[in-house]
Amino acid sequence: MSFRKKIVKSSEEKKSNIVLALDLPPNDRTLLLKRAARILESTQDHICAVKLNRHLLLPLGLFDGVQDLIFQAKEYQLPIIMDCKINDIGNTNRIIAEHYFGGGFDAVTANPFVGWDDGLQPVFETARNIGRGVILLVYMSHRSAGDGYGREFVAVDGTRTPAYMIFARRAVEWNADGAVVGATYPERIGEIHSVLEQKVPIYAPGVGAQGGTISLCMNKGVRYLIVGRTITLASDPGRVAEKIKNQTRAS
Amino acid sequence: MSFRKKIVKSSEEKKSNIVLALDLPPNDRTLLLKRAARILESTQDHICAVKLNRHLLLPLGLFDGVQDLIFQAKEYQLPIIMDCKINDIGNTNRIIAEHYFGGGFDAVTANPFVGWDDGLQPVFETARNIGRGVILLVYMSHRSAGDGYGREFVAVDGTRTPAYMIFARRAVEWNADGAVVGATYPERIGEIHSVLEQKVPIYAPGVGAQGGTISLCMNKGVRYLIVGRTITLASDPGRVAEKIKNQTRAS
Repeated sequence: MSFRKKIVKSSEEKKSNIVLALDLPPNDRTLLLKRAARILESTQDHICAVKLNRHLLLPLGLFDGVQDLIFQAKEYQLPIIMDCKINDIGNTNRIIAEHYFGGGFDAVTANPFVGWDDGLQPVFETARNIGRGVILLVYMSHRSAGDGYGREFVAVDGTRTPAYMIFARRAVEWNADGAVVGATYPERIGEIHSVLEQKVPIYAPGVGAQGGTISLCMNKGVRYLIVGRTITLASDPGRVAEKIKNQTRAS
Repeated sequence: MSFRKKIVKSSEEKKSNIVLALDLPPNDRTLLLKRAARILESTQDHICAVKLNRHLLLPLGLFDGVQDLIFQAKEYQLPIIMDCKINDIGNTNRIIAEHYFGGGFDAVTANPFVGWDDGLQPVFETARNIGRGVILLVYMSHRSAGDGYGREFVAVDGTRTPAYMIFARRAVEWNADGAVVGATYPERIGEIHSVLEQKVPIYAPGVGAQGGTISLCMNKGVRYLIVGRTITLASDPGRVAEKIKNQTRAS
């Protein structure tokens, strides 16, 4: 089953569109793994997928501790995404994707700024060959996102288009499995959704710790909500995940 | 000693300006580590620094096999750079940098596209506090680099500037320890060097396998030459590294 079908199925079964960003601040490696496993266990009924970033990847190791978390996610029937924001040259991008997919990840994130030819083409090719997914960054959630994603680019014919609109078109053209748009920029979500329509689902990080609003996101066309610190740093992660799940379903 | 002083010293002592990109195609982990260690051993007299990318980082693990290579590099008095092309939000970028520096890397690479505030500022701050380095991507070496790095950006006042010139200015303004410019685009090296002057040294990947020319690069203002496959895939890596070293010194 392709990544895209997997997450739709999981989202229906769990009745949730929350992607848990399982990120923890630096700590002893054994503690990190234990805590991550506990958060995943307590939230599994309220999320539709898990996303790891370098917070756990670097200290635990892809073929070491991370394997335990991938195994656990699969046990819960949860697709697992590696948020590695691929942005290297083609040959390296292919090798990065091969390692993450070989390690068991169902999808990777990538930055469309590096282009297609000798850029992200090998990542899409590698993913397509084995039914895995590629999610593109279209507008990030941080304060200076406008200094890159928000800049207007000049085309060969002199017309100006904001980078995020070019990236949204690339997401459709390249048949990406998702587009990341920061929940902190709701007006961008609407604009980008008008390009993506139903072809590419929007994943929005940035609610909670970063200040984005759930209902605004959902109304603007977000399909999956990426939630990290609000859940992972809570004293009762399962309860918080359930609460957010209910909020997104009410919107 | 700061990263910048370290690499200048190493370059003088080894009489080389070659940064070895110690990248190997996917293989059995024990074999990868053995082969990487052997290449490093045989080239150590002809290089001024080592650079790892995800080729070895992912299969070997930062706090596992990679530690052996970092230890070996330090034994040879060679600074070691992690080419991780950081391009996430501020909080994540800081944690990525902390892990790589904590693991023993002397410098990291980062993508200025994500901006400063809540973007790369935490990476520079983390590096500065402990004397480590940050090298920015200014123009990459792959075929579609022009689709991002080569695009003209529109400023608030309507003036148009190519992304790479904005990134070159960011490198000077942020006091970066290096700027990556692809050897495959020699005309860009000259333009970017005119902005960086002597303030930020240029690191150029892309000679050899990717087609860049050594003498052209050196004449345009490149300070360090990043060489990977031409050395790592050679039957006698030490001999090839020595040959390239002599070529760069003759230019």
